[in-house]
Amino acid sequence: MSDNRLSRQTAFLTEADKLKTIFRRTLLTDASRRENTAEHSWHIILTAMVLREYAAEPLNFDRVLEMLAAHDLVEIDADDTFAYDVEGAKTRADRERRAADRLFGMLPPDLGAKLRALWEEFEAHETPEAHFANAVDRFQPFLQNLATEGGTWRIYHPTREQVLRRMDPIRTALPALWTFVRASIEQFFSSME
Amino acid sequence: MSDNRLSRQTAFLTEADKLKTIFRRTLLTDASRRENTAEHSWHIILTAMVLREYAAEPLNFDRVLEMLAAHDLVEIDADDTFAYDVEGAKTRADRERRAADRLFGMLPPDLGAKLRALWEEFEAHETPEAHFANAVDRFQPFLQNLATEGGTWRIYHPTREQVLRRMDPIRTALPALWTFVRASIEQFFSSME
Repeated sequence: MSDNRLSRQTAFLTEADKLKTIFRRTLLTDASRRENTAEHSWHIILTAMVLREYAAEPLNFDRVLEMLAAHDLVEIDADDTFAYDVEGAKTRADRERRAADRLFGMLPPDLGAKLRALWEEFEAHETPEAHFANAVDRFQPFLQNLATEGGTWRIYHPTREQVLRRMDPIRTALPALWTFVRASIEQFFSSME
Repeated sequence: MSDNRLSRQTAFLTEADKLKTIFRRTLLTDASRRENTAEHSWHIILTAMVLREYAAEPLNFDRVLEMLAAHDLVEIDADDTFAYDVEGAKTRADRERRAADRLFGMLPPDLGAKLRALWEEFEAHETPEAHFANAVDRFQPFLQNLATEGGTWRIYHPTREQVLRRMDPIRTALPALWTFVRASIEQFFSSME
């Protein structure tokens, strides 16, 4: 171990603390405040552990967990882009790529490349692990919304079609949950009419 | 899948949200507030991923990550017991056991038993995975303290010996880091004299 290697690792871990100051739109279940991205990242890891049995494809589960822990780090520089923010979506990829350059670049090259690959795999939606991780990343805020009378759906007024499209990774990667998810969304939007 | 099984899983995941309202003594690196246990749980998972190469023993890494995600859930009922709280330590095991009964009891029995076993394994400090997980759980707040001019050491005045004893899992499970950890602690306490 070189001291330089360890000091890069500890500097990265200290920098990662900033993810606790990045706030998403999703509310806590007691509606007292918005959720930050660090605690969201933990919650989707727990969600993956609890819902693993419903995965549509065989998974390298270690990689799922690591992907979920790493995939939102770019928000330290790029901030959270709300799911239904059309303007923000136009610049998101560029902002996040610059963030990835800086943040993963803090690590020793082998480790930085490994974490960056996990982030890219999540974003590309191509592997079974990315399908499952994206589905879990949708299902956790869905549950938070159910617990807060619609949560972000009630506050920001996305359309029923936008929400169903946003939840679509659940339909394919966690198909056994889709009846419940779709029925809950239909019920919420019917109650709003 | 029975609907009852899924509803127990979603009720548990919704209840787990409360871990975001449990506050530890550790400060964020900008010293703006104390860290909550959910974001701490994410940060130790990232720490495990970044420091894995220094593990003293071969690891089932999937189990390390799941153990880190699950081991502090009991704090939802039992609250965080500060590392240097002598009175709290006397009742901690009993409070946490009751919490485990309730929280893991919300899940379908097979899943509840699996998560409870991870918590018990962490607490027993006997397996390579538990050694490593405990070391990581000590190293992350150590880094937060370094970033905040001593952090909890400065605010709550544990003795040098208490801190070195608290950090001892690092000496055995992450031995390559011990020189750095011990030197940093010695330097902090020397600066306080």
